[in-house]
Formats: sequence, structure tokens, C-alpha cells
Amino acid sequence: MTARGEFGLIADLFAPLAAREPGALELADDAAVLDFPAGRQLVTTVDAIVAGVHFWPEDPPGTIARKLMRVNLSDLAAMGADPRAGFLTCAFPKGIEDAWIEAFAAGLAADVEAFSFPIAGGDTVSTPGPATFTLTALGTVPNGQAVLRSTARAGDLLAVTGTIGDGALGLMAAKEWPECPPSFRAFLADRYRVPQPRLEISAALRGILTACMDVSDGVVQDLTHMCRTSGVGATVELEHIPLSEATRWCLDHGLATLEQIMTGGDDYELLMALPPDALPAIEAWRQAGGTPVTVIGRFTDDPAVRLIRGGSQLWVPQRTGFTHF
Amino acid sequence: MTARGEFGLIADLFAPLAAREPGALELADDAAVLDFPAGRQLVTTVDAIVAGVHFWPEDPPGTIARKLMRVNLSDLAAMGADPRAGFLTCAFPKGIEDAWIEAFAAGLAADVEAFSFPIAGGDTVSTPGPATFTLTALGTVPNGQAVLRSTARAGDLLAVTGTIGDGALGLMAAKEWPECPPSFRAFLADRYRVPQPRLEISAALRGILTACMDVSDGVVQDLTHMCRTSGVGATVELEHIPLSEATRWCLDHGLATLEQIMTGGDDYELLMALPPDALPAIEAWRQAGGTPVTVIGRFTDDPAVRLIRGGSQLWVPQRTGFTHF
Repeated sequence: MTARGEFGLIADLFAPLAAREPGALELADDAAVLDFPAGRQLVTTVDAIVAGVHFWPEDPPGTIARKLMRVNLSDLAAMGADPRAGFLTCAFPKGIEDAWIEAFAAGLAADVEAFSFPIAGGDTVSTPGPATFTLTALGTVPNGQAVLRSTARAGDLLAVTGTIGDGALGLMAAKEWPECPPSFRAFLADRYRVPQPRLEISAALRGILTACMDVSDGVVQDLTHMCRTSGVGATVELEHIPLSEATRWCLDHGLATLEQIMTGGDDYELLMALPPDALPAIEAWRQAGGTPVTVIGRFTDDPAVRLIRGGSQLWVPQRTGFTHF
Repeated sequence: MTARGEFGLIADLFAPLAAREPGALELADDAAVLDFPAGRQLVTTVDAIVAGVHFWPEDPPGTIARKLMRVNLSDLAAMGADPRAGFLTCAFPKGIEDAWIEAFAAGLAADVEAFSFPIAGGDTVSTPGPATFTLTALGTVPNGQAVLRSTARAGDLLAVTGTIGDGALGLMAAKEWPECPPSFRAFLADRYRVPQPRLEISAALRGILTACMDVSDGVVQDLTHMCRTSGVGATVELEHIPLSEATRWCLDHGLATLEQIMTGGDDYELLMALPPDALPAIEAWRQAGGTPVTVIGRFTDDPAVRLIRGGSQLWVPQRTGFTHF
């Protein structure tokens, strides 16, 4: 790190991430100055990750960077927002190697490109503790069209994007499970390390969705939050939960349980409430080749979250989701 | 910490910081949704602080919080921006006491009030390392009126707000210097711990200033940056550097050196470039009771920074300022 120093690090590795954003002022001023389109609101979210807590120091640095980007972009997607720019703080341990930082920056660069999402500023400090990164993601949404999580209504359909459980199983597949077919292991590990923010679908459906949130702490816990804040309940038909081929294989071969799938974290899919008459729009989206959206249940007046198996049997998980403390 | 948990902490201590900002959605959604005034640009800055690096674990928690707020607000001031909202990430060590967090939040609350600057979101995580805080400050500026640091012109006057050196001396006065009068010690320590972002003056003068930056790493180093990025030089008349009564006393009694004053960090005053015909506006500002602005020199064609003492003698400091690595 000292070979480059703070200013060298910024010039060599971080300034290119801002190259296409003139408002970043080449990361050389006190702040960034971004143009803001008329008729839009500013959507802002922040996520922090700490080595040994949210990732392992031996994880590939590029995927740590990309996951940080994508977790934040997933929050923007959950609001129906379009990404605008990110601001990144890096607290690097004193002994960190230049090669690690370069690989981390390469991961950032890949996603800056993939999502047209410049890193327009930030801060770089040194820490006697573990590597710690904070990303603030800014997006915009047409005035009044942000999709909240607190506005689900009884009678709405409950739907989810993509497939559930891959992230939670991927954490294990990345390190264990030699009996699992290599292609499934790779698929699951990739789903854990590089989640896919569902930006296109939430932008396409933001006039239609009643409510939305992203699943980071597990479907059961996040759906419970969504119901509580909306003042409704929900019934989920477990046989309708969409599973990837890999997760289905793990379930069928006893490597994974329904509990892990429904309460594990790291899905970064969207939980959506939508009125029943929105089904044709969802079907049109699917036929146009968009990310699958699957109806898995319904929001109810009764303020409980009920998980139903085999038509009528109530299923109660022993733990409800990831807790941070 | 575990007594409250993440959600309790947010509800009890952080939600009140967002109470006046409806767009914060009570910190209960995936992101904040802020109204954005037409005809303005978005100004964004980020600062991170780490226990043992940027503050001492035994510092009063409330002043740690307030300094973090003010350092960021000072960056907004340096751009001529009006504060809009902050987003705060807290990485708390596992053993931290509730009383510490409460005092920290009380400091935040004081400055949320003082600057009408809500904390509209953020993230709270636990860390095996030192307490680490990141604040992203959002502001707005009328389109095209941001004051950059790269636009100083040869012939501009060089001016500075307030007084120089208090922050650097305050770091020492807070712990040592029993021979210094108590009122001076208290003044200097306060200037170090709770700097004053010069928001009013930069907003009042943003149509007038040619360039601006805030002094965080010492006048010599920051002025050198400003000159380099503007492609100009500067001559500073050291006898015109504005000193507080306390700093003057320390200088006269051998507790401090000119070197410490000119190269120490933590001033958080503004370095400003302004055309000579702006002097009446500065004078009017001063007579209206605003923060003093003192002309300390002039920007030049020759790309060197020259510090002049006693009319003509060149003064060269041995170190130029604070380095982060």
C-alpha cells in the first residue's frame, strides 16, 4: 500500500472507475457534483461489509467487490430505482498487498461497466482492524413512483423473482459438498458470490407493483418484515417456491433442507406484491425473455405469515432468518 | 449492544435522527427516497473515521460523532453546496457499551438539529476490529454554481475563513500544556474536536468565488493541491495568517511553532480564490457579522507556492502536511 500511497492508489485504481462521470471531478475535488434529472427523486442506500463477518479474507477480492456493488444495486432495484452512481469507502489493513487491492478494483471495474454505475467518489483510510468497505449507492426514480415495502395490501399476489435458496446453499457449496456435481457447485457458489440485482424487472414493473423488497436475510424473515410494515399477513404455498436445478438436486439428495432454502440469506431476489390483474403484465414480461417471476402466495388480512405445504399443512421453521448480532 | 440488537438500536437511537425527513421512510425500507429540487445538482462527499487512527477510543463519543458530521459538512461548504441529508454506517466492536452508542447518537442528534441535516439512512454492522464510521453527506447546489478547487486563476486573491492552526494545536492542548491558560486550552480543544463548517459563507459567496477547498491536511499541503490542480501558484504573506488569541498566545510562549500552524491539519476553514473586485462583497459580509474572511496572499502564474515572512524572506516548512499512509 505504501508503495503507492493514498493519492497514487486513487489515481491508479479508483479514478478509472469514475472516468465516464464528469461530475466525479477525477476524484480530485472535495465532493462530486452530479447532474440530476428533473422530475425525479433521489434514492439512496448504504451497505457495509467487514472481513471475517460478511466475507472471508481468502475470498477472491474481485467477487467481494462485485457482491458489495450488487447488494446495493439490489436495494435500488427493490425501490424500482435506476442506478446513478456509487461512493465507496475502503478501510484497508496496513499490511494489505497491492495485488489484493488491484484485484478488488478489477471487480469494481467489471460491475461499473456491467451496470453503467460509476464510482464517483469515496474515501480511503487505513485500519488496524479487518478490511472494511462501505458503498453508498445513489439512484433515481420518477417522482412518486418509488416502490415501498410498506404498501402491500390484503388480496395482492405475492411473487418472487428468479430462484430461492441458491445463495444460502452456495455458501456451503463453495467450501464443501464434494458429492455435488461440479457444475451445480459452481452455479451455487457463483449465486452466493455474485448475486444478480433485478434492476430491469423492477424498473419495468414499477407502475404495477404494490410493494417490493429484496430478500437478503431469507424469505421468511424478510416477508415477515414486509407484512408487519404493511399491516397485512401472507400465505405462501411452499410447492410454488421456484428452485434452481442445482438447489432441487441438493434438496432431493439430502444436502439441503427446506428450512435452509426458506430462511437462508443472500438470495437478493425481489419479494413483490402485485394486484391480481397484473398477471398479464408479468406473463408478457416473462415471454419477452425477462427474469422469471413466480407467484408463490397471497397477502391476507390476518397479520400472520403462513407457510403451507401439500395443500393445507402448516410448516413452521425453527429459525426465521439471519440475525446480524 | 446485544441487549438492543440491530433493529432495536436503529429504532431507538437512529430513527429519531431521521424523524423530520419523511423520505427516510423511518429507516424501515430498502433505501431512502428524497425529494430533489429542480434546477440543482447533487453534491456528494464521504468521510470515514477509524478508532485509533482518526480518533481515540477514549474521546467523548458525542464529539466524535459531531466531528464526523462537520468534516463532511465542511466538504459541502467547500463546494458552495447546501446540506440535504447524511447516510451513516456504524461498524461497532462487539463489546461496545450501550452508553457509548447512546452518547454517540446524542452527538449526532445535536448536529442534525444544528444544521437541519437529517441522517436519512445507513447501515449498522458489527466488527472484530476498531469502531469505524462512514458518513456520506448529500447536498445540492444551483446548476453550474458548484465552486471547484481547480479553477483558481493567476491574479485572484487568496483568502481564508476564520483562524488557522487552532485544530492542530487543539490536539495537543486537549491532553498536555498545563501552562496554557485553561480558557485557551478549552478553546483549542474544542476547535479540534468540533470544527465549524463554513456553510453560510460559501453559500453567500458562491457566485463570487473563483475556487474553494477546505483545509483538512494543513494550509501548505492543501494550498499546494489547489494550485497544482488549477495550474497556478500562490504567494502567502505569513504575517496576514489569521490567528486566534489562543494560538497567538501559544506561539508567543513557545508552545507552538509557525510550522505547526501552517502544516497542521484539522482547520476545516476554507481556502478561497476570489477576484480582486470581490473585496467589497467580502467586506459587506464581514460587516453583516459573518465569519471573518482574511486575504492572505495572491495566486500567481509561476506554479510555485511561496510563503513570505517579513516582507520578502522565503519560508520553507520542513514537512508540508498530514499524510494518511
